[in-house]
Amino acid sequence: MKDSVSVGLLGVGVVGSGVISLIEKHQAKLAHQLGCNVHVKSALVRNPEKAREVDAGVNGTELTTNSEDVLNDPEIDVVIEVMGGIEEAREAILKAFEAKKHVVTANKDLVALHGAELHESATKNKCDFYYEASVAGGIPILRGITDGFASDHIEQVMGIVNGTTNYIMTKMSNEGVSYEDALKQAQQLGFAEADPAADVEGLDAARKMAILGRLAFSTYIDLDDVEVTGIKDIELTDLQYGDQLGLTMKLIGFAKFDGKEVEVNVQPALISKEHPLADVKNEYNAVYVYGEAVGEAMFYGAGAGSMPTAAAVISDVVTVIKNMHRGVTGSQFVEPRFKKELKSESQRFSQYYVRFHAKDEAGVFSRISSLFNKLDISFKQILQNPSKNPDTAEIVVITHTASLQNMNEALEELEKLDEVVEINSFYKVEGDADA
Amino acid sequence: MKDSVSVGLLGVGVVGSGVISLIEKHQAKLAHQLGCNVHVKSALVRNPEKAREVDAGVNGTELTTNSEDVLNDPEIDVVIEVMGGIEEAREAILKAFEAKKHVVTANKDLVALHGAELHESATKNKCDFYYEASVAGGIPILRGITDGFASDHIEQVMGIVNGTTNYIMTKMSNEGVSYEDALKQAQQLGFAEADPAADVEGLDAARKMAILGRLAFSTYIDLDDVEVTGIKDIELTDLQYGDQLGLTMKLIGFAKFDGKEVEVNVQPALISKEHPLADVKNEYNAVYVYGEAVGEAMFYGAGAGSMPTAAAVISDVVTVIKNMHRGVTGSQFVEPRFKKELKSESQRFSQYYVRFHAKDEAGVFSRISSLFNKLDISFKQILQNPSKNPDTAEIVVITHTASLQNMNEALEELEKLDEVVEINSFYKVEGDADA
Repeated sequence: MKDSVSVGLLGVGVVGSGVISLIEKHQAKLAHQLGCNVHVKSALVRNPEKAREVDAGVNGTELTTNSEDVLNDPEIDVVIEVMGGIEEAREAILKAFEAKKHVVTANKDLVALHGAELHESATKNKCDFYYEASVAGGIPILRGITDGFASDHIEQVMGIVNGTTNYIMTKMSNEGVSYEDALKQAQQLGFAEADPAADVEGLDAARKMAILGRLAFSTYIDLDDVEVTGIKDIELTDLQYGDQLGLTMKLIGFAKFDGKEVEVNVQPALISKEHPLADVKNEYNAVYVYGEAVGEAMFYGAGAGSMPTAAAVISDVVTVIKNMHRGVTGSQFVEPRFKKELKSESQRFSQYYVRFHAKDEAGVFSRISSLFNKLDISFKQILQNPSKNPDTAEIVVITHTASLQNMNEALEELEKLDEVVEINSFYKVEGDADA
Repeated sequence: MKDSVSVGLLGVGVVGSGVISLIEKHQAKLAHQLGCNVHVKSALVRNPEKAREVDAGVNGTELTTNSEDVLNDPEIDVVIEVMGGIEEAREAILKAFEAKKHVVTANKDLVALHGAELHESATKNKCDFYYEASVAGGIPILRGITDGFASDHIEQVMGIVNGTTNYIMTKMSNEGVSYEDALKQAQQLGFAEADPAADVEGLDAARKMAILGRLAFSTYIDLDDVEVTGIKDIELTDLQYGDQLGLTMKLIGFAKFDGKEVEVNVQPALISKEHPLADVKNEYNAVYVYGEAVGEAMFYGAGAGSMPTAAAVISDVVTVIKNMHRGVTGSQFVEPRFKKELKSESQRFSQYYVRFHAKDEAGVFSRISSLFNKLDISFKQILQNPSKNPDTAEIVVITHTASLQNMNEALEELEKLDEVVEINSFYKVEGDADA
């Protein structure tokens, strides 16, 4: 057993500085747990002159602009990749595995896109490969799913896994501000990037759901398998109707597996206010897991930030070093064992919310409801209000559980009806205990 | 590596039957993870004739009334103790360790009382000893704390760790029913025992907090170190005032560690409705962890029940078998490293809620508030209502943060005032973001 384990860092940005300062600060705790010291020997930076939150050089970490100094250093056993981006990070990690170094990464984009290839290389080189920080920052959700539910069958995962969109939607719900204004506030507070596309279009959440789905269901989910709808088109009207009906709008990552087919998507959905996910506010993240034996469990916490993410990275480093000492490296979070088959629309079931405008004439609602009934869709709740145009009414319905195929067909038929002026919005409804 | 690992079961009650049926059901998943089969070879029962939920005999498990058949069977590597009780279970586990068998238990009473002794024996015999199921049933909280927060300093843990009392208090809060009626309902639904003393007096929660505190702070917490107040004396009046003030009453297990002194207690407390613990309803459990780096994280789920508890037991068995295969048994959740020192009342700080009756005379309130001010206690909120007796007023105050010592002194002084008729209640207030 080594007296001291040297790790190398790729990237000293927000997360990387956190890693250096946490390892420094908790030397005693780490030494107690591991029986050895942990030392960040060298770190790859783009510009060593640039001032950093942690003055890495002072703490005994050599800064370098050449990745080979980290990847080819025989003293370094563990490489931490927190540089971000795809291609450069992918190549660096593959080189690290070839040099028999264990890898810990926080890079969800990379793991979602190239997870299979990286796992394969790790296995081939008998290296450890962990990425707890890639999903929901400081929340130990990946280990929770793989270890905590080891003997259970996970049926469904629902997650609020993007803090930016949750912050925006919380503002919209609680303060009635528009999407644009809420986004501006989020940007001012640092919860949204200057270019918020990856967050608000749902891509960031989709990457995390691909990773979560893979670990929960033990099957490879590709990013292309994840259906994505962003939050840009959400209207305050639907948040207000939702509120009247006891529902809150959230960007929900949804993954379901029945032992055969799998379904993964990210979309704004209305969720019952009684459901614990409805109470997850602002920039917080939470993942709700339905296990056959365990029942419902939720993991809640900060989904991003320098220190939470760095803490998750180091929890992986601790696992790796324990494995090294025991001589059992080469283990992964989990080895997929199922062939993936995606659910068709006829196999996907949910309750739905539809808002539309129809002519305010006798008999209209009866024709509409018989259209739905023919497709086996019945209504759980109906709201009808006069609209600005005196000849039309605004109608909101919440259906009982129906297949997505039937729902889509019903919406097509509905649009064709002369009495229907416009279909305004259509959302899934989750978390209804009577569903 | 063995093709098949035999485990022995002590007790085939609610949890034990769950263990047998889950291991049976998830053979394929377990075999995939472990590379071997898992087989419950024999099980200790009190009465083999008694009908059981799982007909253990049929599934190839031998039933025996002699514990030696399990503890001395050389083929059995792992002993699962789910018989409950203290002395018999303690002796059986010590014998198992002496016979070099790894032990998994769900027995919180035993771990809280004799954890140190059992850990010592496990270490001496190089055996694994895990008890994930002992706290919060199916929620993987112990592993979450020890592995997920490996590189973090946990500052505080607040838990709703007893489902019975949470069910009763949810009923009282939401439906305004009395403690007695809520308890009756809980008993009818099976959420409370015929003799509910251990639950409603807070002892069950205290045991779990002793275990949680030990793992979170890496120091031995004795059950005697945990200050306990039960829920029997809670009055609806205080729930209603709390509601007006934006607070919900919960039985909160509280553990705090500042790196030097530790504080662990269980008591009914008022918690801000904005805090995620306030939304934990009915029989659900949740543990809220404050880590220096990770920030706030919550683990939520079913705290009891046959299947959730059995799933937690098996997650421990999976850990043990992985350790066996790697030849690294003898590991524990965590080895305490700090000497315990309890906080004195002058080192314990909180906000407080006090309800009392005072004479409805000019100048009374000013005398009362100057009494508090002299002890450095200021008020954050004040409610005054006329009481049934026209000469007295009912007063509720919420203080800013104050030391428990000053609060106790203030209450003593308050009681001595001629103007004060009666002090009715006194609770901690938690979860105030402005505190």
